[in-house]
Amino acid sequence: MADDSQIRIGVLSCANIVRKVCRAINLAPNATVSAIASISNSIEEMKSFAASNNFPPTAKIHGSYESLLEDPDVDAVYFPIPASLHVEWAVRAAQKGKHILLDKPVALNVYEFDQIVEACEANGIQFMDGTQWIHNPRTAKIKEFLTDPVRFGQLKTVQSCFSFAANENFLKNDIRVKPGLDGLGALGDAGWYTIQASLLANSFRLPKTVTGLPGHVLNDAGIVLSCGALLDWEEGVTATIYCSFLANVTMEITAIGTKGTLRVHDFVIPFQETEASFTTSTLACLREHKTMNEIPQEACMVIEFARLVGEIKDRGAKPDGFWLSFSRKTQVIVDAVKESLDNNLERVLVSGR
Amino acid sequence: MADDSQIRIGVLSCANIVRKVCRAINLAPNATVSAIASISNSIEEMKSFAASNNFPPTAKIHGSYESLLEDPDVDAVYFPIPASLHVEWAVRAAQKGKHILLDKPVALNVYEFDQIVEACEANGIQFMDGTQWIHNPRTAKIKEFLTDPVRFGQLKTVQSCFSFAANENFLKNDIRVKPGLDGLGALGDAGWYTIQASLLANSFRLPKTVTGLPGHVLNDAGIVLSCGALLDWEEGVTATIYCSFLANVTMEITAIGTKGTLRVHDFVIPFQETEASFTTSTLACLREHKTMNEIPQEACMVIEFARLVGEIKDRGAKPDGFWLSFSRKTQVIVDAVKESLDNNLERVLVSGR
Repeated sequence: MADDSQIRIGVLSCANIVRKVCRAINLAPNATVSAIASISNSIEEMKSFAASNNFPPTAKIHGSYESLLEDPDVDAVYFPIPASLHVEWAVRAAQKGKHILLDKPVALNVYEFDQIVEACEANGIQFMDGTQWIHNPRTAKIKEFLTDPVRFGQLKTVQSCFSFAANENFLKNDIRVKPGLDGLGALGDAGWYTIQASLLANSFRLPKTVTGLPGHVLNDAGIVLSCGALLDWEEGVTATIYCSFLANVTMEITAIGTKGTLRVHDFVIPFQETEASFTTSTLACLREHKTMNEIPQEACMVIEFARLVGEIKDRGAKPDGFWLSFSRKTQVIVDAVKESLDNNLERVLVSGR
Repeated sequence: MADDSQIRIGVLSCANIVRKVCRAINLAPNATVSAIASISNSIEEMKSFAASNNFPPTAKIHGSYESLLEDPDVDAVYFPIPASLHVEWAVRAAQKGKHILLDKPVALNVYEFDQIVEACEANGIQFMDGTQWIHNPRTAKIKEFLTDPVRFGQLKTVQSCFSFAANENFLKNDIRVKPGLDGLGALGDAGWYTIQASLLANSFRLPKTVTGLPGHVLNDAGIVLSCGALLDWEEGVTATIYCSFLANVTMEITAIGTKGTLRVHDFVIPFQETEASFTTSTLACLREHKTMNEIPQEACMVIEFARLVGEIKDRGAKPDGFWLSFSRKTQVIVDAVKESLDNNLERVLVSGR
């Protein structure tokens, strides 16, 4: 049941990912689903979707996105819609004073995303992209290790990959392989995670340059199905990323510092829902670490998002700009990889972007 | 004690690595140390070295490399001497009918190495480079997994790194950072292993192109202290390697196929001497594998080398050309990475080399 302290989240679309996030909202004590809108489902279908996903009985059904954005019982909106629609609907939501939880990739490019940034900043909107692993308690522990001058030292390189072997139907029909929809393919999807892992390991600093690596694979429409890139921070600090829809599921971070090494084998979605592990070594001394999370990481994300929205709504706080900036940096790197792939793998200068 | 069936190995120099390999020869039932020669140590020093490393009392002490190569009680020679001296002494050894165990990097470049190849082929010489992990029983198991069409499928990418944080003395004085000696720096040393891991994962096929990655570090003399490279086999099959003298000890292989993933965390020198492990997953189903080896991997190498020499000596077999070819391919890739680093990271065509 909704109570006054809960942040009321409206959901756009009945896409499959909504089931997972609605479950997360239900698990988050400080949030509730208050409305849903879909433009491709009938009211009946939405009602049945609401029931089968345990929406509170008070949740409203809207026949259009506009109508949901006008709903005074909606504090924030979750957008599991194709990236090509993000700029329009996120800007409109911000203008209506709705806080924004936006799935990655946050936009088709950073020029579009900057319109969202502007609308959020002009309207005091809390923004967060829907990347979940960042909110797993394990990630805080990982960050602790990576910033420890004694156990890890200075970062030298971080190598991350996220791949999964998509089936034939996905490779034909998923929005992630269609030019008009997500448009950025494996780079905007799987690649998003690896770029954020690289940023996390580098204290969220943008690299100086980004270079696409030979061997990328495009589909007939020119969408990236698989690619790699090298991020260079200069002074011998680099990251390589690899993302693919064509290779067995692998979710790996290896970060090597002057004194220590970090290994994570399931960074995107932990093998188990309520515990997660990683390995560190300082010199050759290995240690296995385990963290427990009572609720799944997607609920940790919702809790943090709703907490920030609550600070604004109930205590007049300002939005936490970290999340907008983190998403923007990620999008800058996505764009740079794309630019390099499109231009014969030339090295792309990103510092200052 | 030497017996007639044992292969008699002569050792050039009293370098530190000789202690490890002499112990391995002592552990190998089919090999024995029959002679040592050094040009920088006195006869007395060599005698004391021989005693402290448990050489058989029959082992001869030679005051020059020439004299050891003339020794009829030497079947094969182990060369722990700087790479800049390899071509001269390996060719002379081959001409004297001595079989060759040569430390990596096998030469300063493939043009030099081809002189060794020619001398070996002209004289029926068994060649092997001194890379030890290839002979660990674990590696055979890894190869089995990587060629399994059901558990692993087709290789898509293999990422390997070998780094260690060298101390100040190493970075100033070791032969691996001196232009006149090994000359190839971290690339010829740590990089050698990562290149062989990439070749192993690709059924020992040469890639089509090799590209150096931004962010490499050179010392004042222009020697590579840290670098990365991308190997491209086309059709979406790639490898990235990372090698460094400037980062915490890390020895990682992650190989991703269409159906499975392999992870090894200590591929160069297993954390434990007589057992080694690796992890495989097929889809998301993880499995830990452990192999036992009664004797350390360097002794496995000596046993295999001595076995092949024995086949030639006692049964008139031909040399096993695999090892010459494997080392040559590795050297071709080392050269290509160096060429790319020297030429603004341009893509270097290697197929056909």
